[in-house]
Amino acid sequence: MRTRPLKVALLGCGVVGSEVARIMTTHADDLAARIGAPVELAGVAVRRPSKVREGIDPALVTTDATALVKRGDIDVVVEVIGGIEPARSLITTAIAHGASVVSANKALLAQEGAALHAVAEEAGKDLYYEAAVAGAIPLIRPLRESLAGDKINRVMGIVNGTTNFILDKMDSTGAGYQEALDEATALGYAEADPTADVEGFDAAAKAAILAGIAFHSRVRLDDVHREGMTEVTAADFASAKNMGCTIKLLAICERAADGGSVTARVHPAMIPLTHPLASVRGAYNAVFVESDAAGRLMFYGPGAGGSPTASAVLGDLVAVCRNRLAGATGPGESAYAALPVSPMGEVVTRYHISLDVADKPGVLAQVATVFAEHGVSIDTVRQQGRQDGDGEASLVVVTHRASDASLNGTVEALRSLDTVRGVASIMRVEGE
Amino acid sequence: MRTRPLKVALLGCGVVGSEVARIMTTHADDLAARIGAPVELAGVAVRRPSKVREGIDPALVTTDATALVKRGDIDVVVEVIGGIEPARSLITTAIAHGASVVSANKALLAQEGAALHAVAEEAGKDLYYEAAVAGAIPLIRPLRESLAGDKINRVMGIVNGTTNFILDKMDSTGAGYQEALDEATALGYAEADPTADVEGFDAAAKAAILAGIAFHSRVRLDDVHREGMTEVTAADFASAKNMGCTIKLLAICERAADGGSVTARVHPAMIPLTHPLASVRGAYNAVFVESDAAGRLMFYGPGAGGSPTASAVLGDLVAVCRNRLAGATGPGESAYAALPVSPMGEVVTRYHISLDVADKPGVLAQVATVFAEHGVSIDTVRQQGRQDGDGEASLVVVTHRASDASLNGTVEALRSLDTVRGVASIMRVEGE
Repeated sequence: MRTRPLKVALLGCGVVGSEVARIMTTHADDLAARIGAPVELAGVAVRRPSKVREGIDPALVTTDATALVKRGDIDVVVEVIGGIEPARSLITTAIAHGASVVSANKALLAQEGAALHAVAEEAGKDLYYEAAVAGAIPLIRPLRESLAGDKINRVMGIVNGTTNFILDKMDSTGAGYQEALDEATALGYAEADPTADVEGFDAAAKAAILAGIAFHSRVRLDDVHREGMTEVTAADFASAKNMGCTIKLLAICERAADGGSVTARVHPAMIPLTHPLASVRGAYNAVFVESDAAGRLMFYGPGAGGSPTASAVLGDLVAVCRNRLAGATGPGESAYAALPVSPMGEVVTRYHISLDVADKPGVLAQVATVFAEHGVSIDTVRQQGRQDGDGEASLVVVTHRASDASLNGTVEALRSLDTVRGVASIMRVEGE
Repeated sequence: MRTRPLKVALLGCGVVGSEVARIMTTHADDLAARIGAPVELAGVAVRRPSKVREGIDPALVTTDATALVKRGDIDVVVEVIGGIEPARSLITTAIAHGASVVSANKALLAQEGAALHAVAEEAGKDLYYEAAVAGAIPLIRPLRESLAGDKINRVMGIVNGTTNFILDKMDSTGAGYQEALDEATALGYAEADPTADVEGFDAAAKAAILAGIAFHSRVRLDDVHREGMTEVTAADFASAKNMGCTIKLLAICERAADGGSVTARVHPAMIPLTHPLASVRGAYNAVFVESDAAGRLMFYGPGAGGSPTASAVLGDLVAVCRNRLAGATGPGESAYAALPVSPMGEVVTRYHISLDVADKPGVLAQVATVFAEHGVSIDTVRQQGRQDGDGEASLVVVTHRASDASLNGTVEALRSLDTVRGVASIMRVEGE
């Protein structure tokens, strides 16, 4: 074994960073044996240097992250500060000064992945980021290495633990969205401002990263259709149960049937209770992958938290260190297929639509005609009088597969019918 | 991209091999882009050269596998013939003549893994075998790379599809073992001689491989305690249901609580219906991994079959080819921890024991005394009169955690009691 240590600079020492530093110390012998050389924490860049950080030599702590990544003796920079800047500049500078990079930064990778990969490849350095998607779950490595000889057709996952906790709570207790969110906040699963989670921004960043890797193409955050889950109601869960389904916030990356394009989207959807993703409870994450040869695979585990994320970071650290010792680099960006991303209108799936309609004869015929005119074929219709004497009934329509554009046209036309008082909900049905 | 192709020799052209050859042809462009150089099928060693093999140039076919691996111009040898010999000699010869190796051979890796790794490392060549465990499910790469910065404490999996099909059938239909086996045979899930599957030999080989990787130690096939599932009865499933459990044939690799040793075993066990492994149906495989930092992970997918196994083989092929182009090798054997394998007697778990006892007062006290004398603490007891007037009752005891040795001592003592007419079944309870 080489005795001269590989030097690691840590950018950020919050929940994840402190856990990375801790494991680097407590498991130093194991890491050295697995890498073939010891690793040494050579510097830790933080915003608040006065904060006491147990187990970290204060002499290593600096507020000057730029100077740290410019030192020139750093082998690997671990970036766990998040956000676009200064993370992007620091990573670029680190690579320019000879370091390889391990990052947990999903937003940055989703937005600037191509540019950062180009910088790393040009410099002959590694850029690894297993922790950016689904925390501890090995996903990026399996997709880009284990399945490198296969053709991936669909990646469908629960990649945000906060929203899965909320939806699971709504499902199991009948609670409404706000009540479930409040509980998630009280338990620390949701942040004070839950926007990034509940509006699907976090999941969309992960979808962009997964789609890019799965389809060997560039998929940016802006390419991902995004709908949050704040409007999912207890009534939607009741409808889902009627269908033998539950509701999950899904990130779905698909290759078009003709193979010539891909789509990426995040939205709540009904999935059958028999689907493996349906039983993913609480704040857990899981990603379902369908490929030509391997068939249906699923990867399940904790999607966030200091220790799980640190596990993913350290796995990358070992790989990057091994690569440096071997004078090699791991797989970089693979975007040779260069498939275009189709707009949401071209996505084809099934829909569950609840309509409030006038409770009188002929309404179903009218509604059915609108669906037919837009080329959307109806699978089942359920009609219920409301029994509350206001002359309204509800009509639940489940369609066969249709394009999002056709469905939108259908809904627009339905809204213009006098007999349709309102569209109570529209939910996609996936995983069948 | 390099234009000179990497040359691949295929040893074996059965269900898996023919699928590997097919995908190498149909996905040649994708493979070339992902590797950075084209790959060329340079030879195929078979036993029956006269058999027509669609899509394979007959000029490539040979019966002289040894000559093929000795050619010297072969970059990667893909071994999918299985068994110990001639696979071992061919792999050794191939490495000696400069090739890297991708194998799907679980029996060989479980028995001769250490020796083969040593040969490969000495020669500076890769030996990859993702397909040897759980077919298409990325498992070896995640364990030895993604979790390389973590400490794995337990690997528990359903790694044999045939037995899972049989047990799932017994669970869902109430069928007995023989009836379910007959159906598995009729559907092609079980071979004419199902011994390797139903007696747990196949799973034991996989357990040895998984334990070695997870614990960075050498675990041989002989170190794995093995019990088959041919004695699982419909009554056992009824008992399991009473406990809120089902029964699975599990491969379990554990680090001892004190960290100083490991165990590996294969046997049927009850697991709670709430455990993610309980919902693994049909011939699917799944492996549950528990580690210090990552927590609980699960990997799920098809565990066998031509296409899934070929997917795993080709993923390895891409990695090995990339390594050759980079002049590097991937992670080899990691056995630095050198933890000893403890005997089965030291395994600690819970037990579900069904006894046929005399239906008279005092029996429960007698039985409870035997458990206490052997230091096995009882969790619950359920006593049922049989109502068939033969003076017998049944007693179902579920224990707290105890060592296998203590449990065996208890059962031996129970058998010697006059009031115990028989021990109907002993089943471990896992996954709680």
